[in-house]
Amino acid sequence: MFKIRSLVIALALTGSISVASAWEALPTVAPAPSDNPTTEEKVELGKMLYHDPRLSSTGTVSCASCHNTMLGGEDNRPNSMGVNGQTGGRSSPTVWNSAFNAVQFWDGRAATLEAQAAGPVTNPIEMGMKNWDDVVVRLKSIEGYQVAFEQAFGKDAISQDNATKAIAAYERTLITPNSPYDKYVSGDKSALTEQQVRGMNKVAELGCTSCHSGPAFNGPGMFQKFPVHSNSFYAAKYHFKDDKGLAEVTKKADDEHLWKVPTLRNIALTAPYFHNGAAKTLDEAVTVMGKTQLDKDLSKEEIADIVAFLNGLTGEFPKQTMPVLPPTPGKSFN
Amino acid sequence: MFKIRSLVIALALTGSISVASAWEALPTVAPAPSDNPTTEEKVELGKMLYHDPRLSSTGTVSCASCHNTMLGGEDNRPNSMGVNGQTGGRSSPTVWNSAFNAVQFWDGRAATLEAQAAGPVTNPIEMGMKNWDDVVVRLKSIEGYQVAFEQAFGKDAISQDNATKAIAAYERTLITPNSPYDKYVSGDKSALTEQQVRGMNKVAELGCTSCHSGPAFNGPGMFQKFPVHSNSFYAAKYHFKDDKGLAEVTKKADDEHLWKVPTLRNIALTAPYFHNGAAKTLDEAVTVMGKTQLDKDLSKEEIADIVAFLNGLTGEFPKQTMPVLPPTPGKSFN
Repeated sequence: MFKIRSLVIALALTGSISVASAWEALPTVAPAPSDNPTTEEKVELGKMLYHDPRLSSTGTVSCASCHNTMLGGEDNRPNSMGVNGQTGGRSSPTVWNSAFNAVQFWDGRAATLEAQAAGPVTNPIEMGMKNWDDVVVRLKSIEGYQVAFEQAFGKDAISQDNATKAIAAYERTLITPNSPYDKYVSGDKSALTEQQVRGMNKVAELGCTSCHSGPAFNGPGMFQKFPVHSNSFYAAKYHFKDDKGLAEVTKKADDEHLWKVPTLRNIALTAPYFHNGAAKTLDEAVTVMGKTQLDKDLSKEEIADIVAFLNGLTGEFPKQTMPVLPPTPGKSFN
Repeated sequence: MFKIRSLVIALALTGSISVASAWEALPTVAPAPSDNPTTEEKVELGKMLYHDPRLSSTGTVSCASCHNTMLGGEDNRPNSMGVNGQTGGRSSPTVWNSAFNAVQFWDGRAATLEAQAAGPVTNPIEMGMKNWDDVVVRLKSIEGYQVAFEQAFGKDAISQDNATKAIAAYERTLITPNSPYDKYVSGDKSALTEQQVRGMNKVAELGCTSCHSGPAFNGPGMFQKFPVHSNSFYAAKYHFKDDKGLAEVTKKADDEHLWKVPTLRNIALTAPYFHNGAAKTLDEAVTVMGKTQLDKDLSKEEIADIVAFLNGLTGEFPKQTMPVLPPTPGKSFN
């Protein structure tokens, strides 16, 4: 896909073809791994676990606290707030359409949604559980979870593996189709304004879509360097050099400042921007990307057109029922 | 109602009548004040506001954080955790069936749900907003709220008054009917076990229902002293004397240790117990109430019967759709 897109972009740069023919609408179903096929029971259980603050040490932080399913899938904060008011250094990525990410977390350190789901629960700053054994003990003490795990996985099935599988199965249902962009590429030429179409062609022409490629505008899964072009003004203003990205995990010099390519889907709803939430507005984020990734000073008009296009990537959020969480009957959970 | 119930209890004590005839099922609709009739638009708006963490200074705490509509209407913590990990001295009361409370807050300082809703938002420990003017400015900046307030209240209607009216209108829909107790008093004599019926008769016989009266077991609205009987062991163990209840607001000696009578509905789901969350289990709470309010040492059997009955007060939680919160488009909210 990357090669095809590169070709399209190259051709687009020559002005010889319309780039619109290569744009793809968002699939409405996400693929599931063979060892975790999506079932209704898993999704229902996963939805409960995802929204249950009892998966945190204080009982106050659920997955949904930072990746809010009632909003744009995150918390609109520069960095998230975990247990006891603690904050880390990164901004929550959106959970919406995360099923279409080839890797998870800003630094891509998890290969699957299942692996991702295990992390924050035992992160001392995020959900603060000491270990997954403690989570399993707590879940086992809740009768309703015994039933829900059995329905999803069979008898005596409460485990870290199954809990994260259920959460991942639920997350695979969090898809936002039918954005103006999707309608446009599916044939409704009135779905985007003229300005939005200009912006759409501009992101291809500039090369934004060589990384932000594919239907979720998040690339085929390779890591990318950010920032590519060092700029002393931006380095001072946004502190992008403070966090080494993938290298924080691998400790390899080659991995410094490598990041997962984040989706552009619903990006109008997920301010502030970048791994550290340093840019407050979409205008600012586009300006920065022009400079740090392309070494270009985009004009006001170009920025306005691109932002208009990005606003066309806001999809339809499916109506969900609220999970009724199984109670911890007759006793305090902590 | 209080007189009738007292009479029933008096008669029950003589053993001359069955008390069951005076028990009342929970109404399925809550009365609304004449200046805030319940409408679908208000309920929908109120549900959004209730679940919106942007009503807090940090963007991390909504009404639902401490009064969780996916659980028993509170957080199962001894005290709640507000913005920046701060905790106060009291345990969250349940939002379920709060429409049937004659007064609100543990100390009853709010006469209505509307008045209650205004409080936590600007409490520095809870949601931490500086004042309601700032809340209104924030709500006005969100286009989706402009629309939702207009639908509920008419043009240019974003105000503290209307926000709290909408939240109260939503809360009036949070009713949990059809508990085993309700089915029992509506004629299904198999809905409660023999032990639960023994417990039911016991709470009347002991006089528990002279305060915990009416269909929500929360009295007709008068304040009650707690603890009535000082006991040095309990005073040391549970610290009930540290918080003076209504007197903390009125500063009157007569109001010391006066409290609203809390509902017993869904009490099996709302551990830990008492205004300071000092009792971890329902068994413990019943034991303490026997001693502090009635000066009685209840037997193991009496406690077990009463707890069995209280477990029969868990109602049906209505299926709700998750609100889709209107976004703060293209910018960080803080």
